[in-house]
Amino acid sequence: MLKLNCDIGESFGIWKLGEDEKIMPLIDMANIACGFHASDPLNMTKTILLAKRFNVEIGAHPSYQDLVGFGRRSIPYSKDELKAIILYQIGALRAIANANGVDISYIKPHGALYNDMMKSLDIFMAINEAIYSYDKKLSLMILSTSKNSEFERISKVKLIFEAFADRAYSSDGFLVARSKKGSVIKDKNKVIKRVRDLVKRGVIYDINNKELKLKVDSLCVHGDNEEALSLVKVIKDVLDEI
Amino acid sequence: MLKLNCDIGESFGIWKLGEDEKIMPLIDMANIACGFHASDPLNMTKTILLAKRFNVEIGAHPSYQDLVGFGRRSIPYSKDELKAIILYQIGALRAIANANGVDISYIKPHGALYNDMMKSLDIFMAINEAIYSYDKKLSLMILSTSKNSEFERISKVKLIFEAFADRAYSSDGFLVARSKKGSVIKDKNKVIKRVRDLVKRGVIYDINNKELKLKVDSLCVHGDNEEALSLVKVIKDVLDEI
Amino acid sequence: MLKLNCDIGESFGIWKLGEDEKIMPLIDMANIACGFHASDPLNMTKTILLAKRFNVEIGAHPSYQDLVGFGRRSIPYSKDELKAIILYQIGALRAIANANGVDISYIKPHGALYNDMMKSLDIFMAINEAIYSYDKKLSLMILSTSKNSEFERISKVKLIFEAFADRAYSSDGFLVARSKKGSVIKDKNKVIKRVRDLVKRGVIYDINNKELKLKVDSLCVHGDNEEALSLVKVIKDVLDEI
Amino acid sequence: MLKLNCDIGESFGIWKLGEDEKIMPLIDMANIACGFHASDPLNMTKTILLAKRFNVEIGAHPSYQDLVGFGRRSIPYSKDELKAIILYQIGALRAIANANGVDISYIKPHGALYNDMMKSLDIFMAINEAIYSYDKKLSLMILSTSKNSEFERISKVKLIFEAFADRAYSSDGFLVARSKKGSVIKDKNKVIKRVRDLVKRGVIYDINNKELKLKVDSLCVHGDNEEALSLVKVIKDVLDEI
Repeated sequence: MLKLNCDIGESFGIWKLGEDEKIMPLIDMANIACGFHASDPLNMTKTILLAKRFNVEIGAHPSYQDLVGFGRRSIPYSKDELKAIILYQIGALRAIANANGVDISYIKPHGALYNDMMKSLDIFMAINEAIYSYDKKLSLMILSTSKNSEFERISKVKLIFEAFADRAYSSDGFLVARSKKGSVIKDKNKVIKRVRDLVKRGVIYDINNKELKLKVDSLCVHGDNEEALSLVKVIKDVLDEI
Repeated sequence: MLKLNCDIGESFGIWKLGEDEKIMPLIDMANIACGFHASDPLNMTKTILLAKRFNVEIGAHPSYQDLVGFGRRSIPYSKDELKAIILYQIGALRAIANANGVDISYIKPHGALYNDMMKSLDIFMAINEAIYSYDKKLSLMILSTSKNSEFERISKVKLIFEAFADRAYSSDGFLVARSKKGSVIKDKNKVIKRVRDLVKRGVIYDINNKELKLKVDSLCVHGDNEEALSLVKVIKDVLDEI
Repeated sequence: MLKLNCDIGESFGIWKLGEDEKIMPLIDMANIACGFHASDPLNMTKTILLAKRFNVEIGAHPSYQDLVGFGRRSIPYSKDELKAIILYQIGALRAIANANGVDISYIKPHGALYNDMMKSLDIFMAINEAIYSYDKKLSLMILSTSKNSEFERISKVKLIFEAFADRAYSSDGFLVARSKKGSVIKDKNKVIKRVRDLVKRGVIYDINNKELKLKVDSLCVHGDNEEALSLVKVIKDVLDEI
Repeated sequence: MLKLNCDIGESFGIWKLGEDEKIMPLIDMANIACGFHASDPLNMTKTILLAKRFNVEIGAHPSYQDLVGFGRRSIPYSKDELKAIILYQIGALRAIANANGVDISYIKPHGALYNDMMKSLDIFMAINEAIYSYDKKLSLMILSTSKNSEFERISKVKLIFEAFADRAYSSDGFLVARSKKGSVIKDKNKVIKRVRDLVKRGVIYDINNKELKLKVDSLCVHGDNEEALSLVKVIKDVLDEI
């Protein structure tokens, strides 16, 4: 079964972001911000309780330390420092989860850290080793690409491969950069067709309409606004009907 | 046996504070800063490794969030927010400890949070409940005062009572405020005599030279400079000879 | 003429707060956040440009340093530190203003700093002296109360007295605390009547319906949502008709 | 006359860095940290007063926003954001200076921002335009290299060219990277000889012992420790004797 995952809990102090209350009932996995790109201890608590209420699997969503940049800027860290900030954030979220009777089961890096992880094996391994040294049972969620088997070969922890139904893929099985034309698929019907193709036949069509065979465990959806929410509802219906 | 505890790991980024390398071999319990009043994930890692090397018991040293004020300013938090920041910091430190093969065993609040905890039962209970909800086996270190039994009666977790050999006590068994004359005892011989009185006969003399009978599990020492270090060495000798 | 002032530019990073684009055309004075309770250099630039577009007078809106608490928590600062954070924020905003061809003309402290200033003459004088030492031509906006003349007597800089049309006043001419029943007046017609009373006859009715004679230079309005905006439009009509 | 400049005021909160009290009397220009890589409003005030006491020219030393990384990590900013953070920091320092009866006269970017400015004309121009839009009379201090005339041609503000007597230069007139062997010249006598060559004959010898003819207005010195201080004293003697 293809699980739906969503970045969530990205409010900060009094500032609200995303329709967390509305998207939480629709998803299977909640990637919860840990205070470095968004959120704070109190918002993390609220998000944990919301995930608990809807019985949603909890993942830590750690980031480079950059609130004002929302973790979207690539910041160079030493390997030791990178491992340390990953552990710090995972542990912080887990303590809040445990104190509220639930636990985390996976890690999905955020923003620039996520992108850098997909481009640099050093960064991938730093994150990987941080998790493995801490708790071998935690999984790491990464982007499903043509390099899945390569990542699996070197990974010390279980990998969860995620795909995006609303993003165009290049022929080498990576996402087309957001800055390029056609990178984001806005036509709802096309997105739904892509979900069907992925679930029923395990394929994604690249930007040249060639088939990509990618292992996908989870689909990343968004809860930013009403339009995004209505798309998730349709995707959920597609998954349920299958 | 009276254990020596010390606030440690209070460097931040490139800024150094305290003679951590020199004090760690002399103490039994390390109260390690968690990034809210001092330290950062990389410095926390280094401090954990240092504690591990000298087989020192590890405690989390959480604080109000106030780097520029070093956690010394009293900031009003709601109960939920206070619990959340405590859990956040404990969990962050614990993950770094666990990933390096060690664990934390107790919590000692820092600075203004420590002082407020001793004055406000609401704050004491918020910290207490945060710890209890997270891990019943963790202890909470507080100041040994004439109210020890009262605190023990309401506490959900095991309490560790600490005393200061270099601080004057008022007749009601609390510390004389630092702003008052005679609050800090600088005469080394007097400090050593106080340690002896405490260890051999379980008493502390208050500022009027009256005996206070206080339960004391641990003595708080400092590693800020060479003078402080040499005092700790003498205190250690006193404890060893007994 | 009674000027309308509004706290504005309180977004932070990607997080939006308030309907700045809609409220700016309606007000006379913009109290612009300076990065300590809200905003950041880029958002400050955008807000300055918006104020410039609508020819709105610009005030600095400095705060205690507390993003996660939105400057609403009272934090104890030494007098020197308080003066320093006020100057830091004023100067930061002014440089951005000047680089964009405009200038600031007054200061209105934010949140807990504003409340503390009204309660503590030490804090009032610290802010006052900071401004005076920097630029004697800048004014300080404070709450109009029964103590206006007392504040005027000790102030080194020109004071601007502001009132709230939607807040109840106690008999001693201070605002009724938000936590008390009836402190916020939600009935639009009542608010408008209060504006009329204030503008035409210079009086505010206190919570016991007794007349208060207060000097008022400016009325504080809010741009948080559509309802707030529609109230400001009506207030503006009332002011225009007079 | 060759002026000595030094990065200064880089303490933060209770954390001390550098021998500011000892180096200030020896230098001509103080590059004062503005709170983004080091310092805070109160430390900025103290540093301003120290510069004032010794009649030292004051420059703003702005940085990327990165306290924990001490501004040494290259963080990508948009041009607008970069201009905004430069103005924010300059203005903050200037207000504190003005309130204490002095003023700033130049800007020297810090750390990664300085290095990026020397490598990227976009970043150089962003800084340049920020300063020019704010106050045409402020100068910008950059590294003296073989590209001085190129920088001067495009600069909108006056440039101050600085050199390092204790750093090796490559044949193209840039600094040899710190990571490379021989990049830092530790032999005091060699450093002094280089100062003499520079002051008397206007030349620096590159790493291959070839003469570089560079325009140099100021020499950057360091006040980190006693050794650095004693070197500065000798350099000052050399300059005085000439």
